[in-house]
Amino acid sequence: MSVNTLNWSKRGLEILDQRLLPVQKKRIVLTTTEGVCDAIKTLAVRGAPAIGVAAAYGVVVAAREKTNRDFVSSAIHALRQTRPTAVNLFYALGSMSEVVDSAFDSNDPVHFLLDKARALHDEDIRICRELSFHGAALIGDGDTVLTHCNAGGLATSGYGTALGVLYAAAEQGKKIRVYADETRPLLQGGRLTAWELAQNDIEVTVICDSMAGVVLRDGLIDHVIVGADRIAANGDTANKIGTYGLSVLAKAHAVPLYVAAPLTSFDFSLSSGNEIPIEERAANEIYDMWSPGKQTDGVEFYNPAFDVTPAPHISAIISEKGVARFPFDKTLADWRK
Amino acid sequence: MSVNTLNWSKRGLEILDQRLLPVQKKRIVLTTTEGVCDAIKTLAVRGAPAIGVAAAYGVVVAAREKTNRDFVSSAIHALRQTRPTAVNLFYALGSMSEVVDSAFDSNDPVHFLLDKARALHDEDIRICRELSFHGAALIGDGDTVLTHCNAGGLATSGYGTALGVLYAAAEQGKKIRVYADETRPLLQGGRLTAWELAQNDIEVTVICDSMAGVVLRDGLIDHVIVGADRIAANGDTANKIGTYGLSVLAKAHAVPLYVAAPLTSFDFSLSSGNEIPIEERAANEIYDMWSPGKQTDGVEFYNPAFDVTPAPHISAIISEKGVARFPFDKTLADWRK
Repeated sequence: MSVNTLNWSKRGLEILDQRLLPVQKKRIVLTTTEGVCDAIKTLAVRGAPAIGVAAAYGVVVAAREKTNRDFVSSAIHALRQTRPTAVNLFYALGSMSEVVDSAFDSNDPVHFLLDKARALHDEDIRICRELSFHGAALIGDGDTVLTHCNAGGLATSGYGTALGVLYAAAEQGKKIRVYADETRPLLQGGRLTAWELAQNDIEVTVICDSMAGVVLRDGLIDHVIVGADRIAANGDTANKIGTYGLSVLAKAHAVPLYVAAPLTSFDFSLSSGNEIPIEERAANEIYDMWSPGKQTDGVEFYNPAFDVTPAPHISAIISEKGVARFPFDKTLADWRK
Repeated sequence: MSVNTLNWSKRGLEILDQRLLPVQKKRIVLTTTEGVCDAIKTLAVRGAPAIGVAAAYGVVVAAREKTNRDFVSSAIHALRQTRPTAVNLFYALGSMSEVVDSAFDSNDPVHFLLDKARALHDEDIRICRELSFHGAALIGDGDTVLTHCNAGGLATSGYGTALGVLYAAAEQGKKIRVYADETRPLLQGGRLTAWELAQNDIEVTVICDSMAGVVLRDGLIDHVIVGADRIAANGDTANKIGTYGLSVLAKAHAVPLYVAAPLTSFDFSLSSGNEIPIEERAANEIYDMWSPGKQTDGVEFYNPAFDVTPAPHISAIISEKGVARFPFDKTLADWRK
C-alpha cells in the first residue's frame, strides 16, 4: 500500500504530476530550482510531508544546477517562498540549510546534500508508517471513515498520514469503507484520495463537500480523519479549507475527528492556531471550473487554501509518538522533547 | 431588478438556458413536451417556482403539439416525472390538470390553457415580490448575507425568493453585500447567483461551499438566506444539498438562517421533512468536473440533489403571507387557510 509520489533519479527530482491525476499518470523530472518551486506552487506535488521532502530534494537540484554556495542559499530562499502554511517545508529547508556549509566543505557538495535529502525522505516514510499503525488502533473492523482533501500516499513519501491510518487498519485485516469529500477548489479528494484508495482496494465513495452534513446526520460515519499542514502547541490544526466546517459538523453529530500528522507538521513555536499564516490562492482556481480563464464581470472571489480547526473540535491527534487525546497541551509538550 | 428567466413566445416556451450561464446567454425555444421535460431534467430551467411555471407552459406546448385531450394528459404525466422534490411542479401541473376538461370543451383549448399558465406565471411574479418585501424587513442597511444555490430571478419568474429579499432591501435603499456558495455539483451559486447579483449591482463574493464555515466563524455574515424546494407543515425545509450542513454551521455561530419561498413551495400534506422525496442524480455531475465522461475505476459516488433542514435550525420562514418565526406550526397552519 504505497504510491511512488516522488523519488530521486539520475536526471533530478522525479514526481508524479498530481495536477493531472486521475486522468493521466505522468511522471515529470525537475532539473531546475525554478521547476521545483513551480511544482510546489502549482500543486504538482502537494501535501505537507511531500512538500517538505520535495523541497529538500529541490536543494539538491539547485546544487546540481550551479554547484555554488550562494546559488544554493538563494534557492533555499526561493523554495521557502513557495507556500506559507505547511510547516514541513520550513523544517525540511531548515535541515538542509544546516548542512550547506558542510556540503560545500566536502569533496562532493551535491552528493552530501543528496544524502541529507534522502535521509529526510527515508525518515518521512518511516514515521508515516509508525503514526499510521498508532492511529489504526482507533479504527474498528467494518468502520466507515470520512476524510477531506488528500492526506494519503500522494501527500507524503508514499504511505500517508490520515489515509496511512486506514492502510494500516487494512493491513491489520480490518474492513474499512471511506467517504471522501471532493475538496474544492482543486478536488484533491475526488481526484487523488479516491484514486489512491481504489488503487489500494479500499471501498471509497466520493461526495461533494456540501454533502458531508447529511452523511454525518444519517449515521453513515464512525470517524472523521484528516491530515494537517501545521499544528500549534495547543493542538489547533491548520488543514485544507473546509476542515474547520467539517469539524463543526462532526461535533454536532458526536462523531470523533482525528488529525494524523508527523512531528514535522507540528509548530511548537506557536501557542495557538491564530498565529498560523493562511495562504490565499488565486480566484481562477474557483471560476476556471465553469468559466475557464474568464471571471464574470463584477463578481469577486475569496479563496483561502486552509483553515484552522480549534483543538476542542479534535478528539485525537496521531503522530509517530502515539495518540494524544484532547486537551493536547501536555502530551504535545512531551512529544516535543 | 429582474431576469427574463422564461416567457411564452409565438414559437413556444422560451427560456434562458441556465446550463450555459454565465459563459453564454442563450435563449432557447421549447416546442415539444419532450423538449420541456428535458429542459427541466437537465436544469436548463431550474429553481422550484420556475420549474412550476415552466411545467404549466409545458402543458400549453403539449396542447400545441397535439391538440388532443389524451395527449395533453399524458404530457402532464410525463412532466410530473421530471423531478421529484420541488412541490411547485406538482401544484402547477395540478392546476393545469383541473382545467384540461374545460379547455377541451372550449373553442380554443390551446388559448384556454395558455391563459391558465399565464395566470400562474403572473401570480408567481406577484407573490415573489410580495414575499421579498416582507423579507426585506429582516435585512438592515450594510448587512452581509450568505446564500446557497440560486433562489433568485433565475429560479422564479424573474424576481426571486431568497435573492428577491435582497433586491427588495436594495430597492429600499439598503446597501447589501452577499457571499454566494458556489454550490457543487452544478455550481448554481458560482454561475447563476453571482451573475444575477452582479447584473443587479449587488456586491457579491463567491466562495466554495467548504468556505462557509470560516466566513461564519470570522463574523463576516449577518444572515444566511436560502430558498426552498418543499416545506413541510412543521417548517422542515428541503433545499439544495448543502443547506442542512450550512444550517448547522449557522446555528453553531449564532447567525440566523431564513428560508424564503412562496406558498406554492409548501406541502401541508407532510407533517415533517422526513416524508419529502429527495432526488438522487447521476454520478457524472460530480466527476465530469475533473474526468469528463469517465469515472475512475473502483470509485463510487453519492449525489443527492437536496437535503432537509430541520425547522429548529430555521429562524424565520418568509412567504407572501409574511414572516413566520420558529416554531412554525401555528403560523403555517394559519397561512394554509
